[in-house]
Amino acid sequence: MALSKNTIKTLTALHRKKFRQKYNNFIAEGDKIVGELIRQRHYPVQEVFALPAWLEVNEPLLQENSIPFSTINDAELRLISQLTSPNQVLAVVGQPLEEKTVDWSDNWSLYLDGLQDPGNVGTILRIADWFAIPRVIAGPGTVELFNAKVLQATMGAFLRVQWITQSLSAIRSNHPTLPIWAADMAGEDIFKLEAPKAGILVIGNEGQGVSEQVKAMVDQQVAIIAPHGSGAESLNAGVATGILCAALRRGRA
Amino acid sequence: MALSKNTIKTLTALHRKKFRQKYNNFIAEGDKIVGELIRQRHYPVQEVFALPAWLEVNEPLLQENSIPFSTINDAELRLISQLTSPNQVLAVVGQPLEEKTVDWSDNWSLYLDGLQDPGNVGTILRIADWFAIPRVIAGPGTVELFNAKVLQATMGAFLRVQWITQSLSAIRSNHPTLPIWAADMAGEDIFKLEAPKAGILVIGNEGQGVSEQVKAMVDQQVAIIAPHGSGAESLNAGVATGILCAALRRGRA
Repeated sequence: MALSKNTIKTLTALHRKKFRQKYNNFIAEGDKIVGELIRQRHYPVQEVFALPAWLEVNEPLLQENSIPFSTINDAELRLISQLTSPNQVLAVVGQPLEEKTVDWSDNWSLYLDGLQDPGNVGTILRIADWFAIPRVIAGPGTVELFNAKVLQATMGAFLRVQWITQSLSAIRSNHPTLPIWAADMAGEDIFKLEAPKAGILVIGNEGQGVSEQVKAMVDQQVAIIAPHGSGAESLNAGVATGILCAALRRGRA
Repeated sequence: MALSKNTIKTLTALHRKKFRQKYNNFIAEGDKIVGELIRQRHYPVQEVFALPAWLEVNEPLLQENSIPFSTINDAELRLISQLTSPNQVLAVVGQPLEEKTVDWSDNWSLYLDGLQDPGNVGTILRIADWFAIPRVIAGPGTVELFNAKVLQATMGAFLRVQWITQSLSAIRSNHPTLPIWAADMAGEDIFKLEAPKAGILVIGNEGQGVSEQVKAMVDQQVAIIAPHGSGAESLNAGVATGILCAALRRGRA
């Protein structure tokens, strides 16, 4: 059964942020992520579009979960996919069924201060997942989670790490005693600091670093100290986040 | 003066590994990297192709260094560039003038065991540069340094970090006492080990990890321990390398 022109139009509209926000849903792609989405309960899977080979294996899973699906061919998959190399299956997914309550004082959170690169943002979610950091906050100007490249780079971490869109000033005014740390070249060596149990670690924009507005709220600037002989001007935002999270978690496994 | 068909053909041939190896040179792009290349002495800059706006500022620098150049227009730049968004200037660069002698016992080296992703490899050179690790060894199957995406991702680090193409068994047979560490899920917590002054840290392929052949030569397997509650199956190879290098350098700034 061929996809109708209307279905194709609706699906390709979801490639754009504007329509994802209008319809309140997004597209997830690939065998691994779609499989994980169907097995979890946080995001509702509304419909699945898949090649016959994928359905041969996974049709029982779809039926158990009462998820409607359509069989498509390679040409149709290429039409509706957001990827240059589409992978068998694509799902239309709704926004989370209920927002988890947030206990800011139970653990660290990451705050992204206007991060623009989808690969970096996805990688940072994967890092949070690895280091059991329960949430990532997208500050103003940060790329949207449901961007196809962000989702892809998370390698499924978006299913486990909560994504919150909020400004730092809103969090600070509700939780005035929560420690706020920020990555800054001029900060103290994070490996020499004793990290509190909970707090917010701010990651600055790739080019500009932490904004002045956010800096004014920071309690502790932290740095990854470059040894003598270092040449690079900076580390990639994802790599820096990985090192900072490792330092926060050191010896707490 | 328009570029000749022959020049365009020669330049676009350098987009391919085969011709880079045949002619023993490569293309570097962008204002920052080309500027740095002209100011250093390790790589010979053979010719520069640039937009009039770039030459207006940089022509004296080219003349001081006796580097031939051609003025090109936007359309020509798009034709000869390897980038989707070309940036003003492009240089044809030769292989290093002389190989630095390698003292394996003076410091750590990174060994890439078949790394395939150009972004990861470039990021790893940038990490080595930041942590003053003087060299990166490309084992068999690793993507070539002079790939445009690798060079771009190094952010200029390739000018300071030595790139060596060699197999681990060749290094080991010449330096049998040099410690070899490798990243492995089942390894010991790297933050709990005392690192020797020098050694080789092996980074495995993105999907397969460290190959069996290389594993047989490893003295110490090291891991980035995931805390309780961790969800991700792995970290990105660049992020993992950053954390391992930070652990090696901790407290030695």
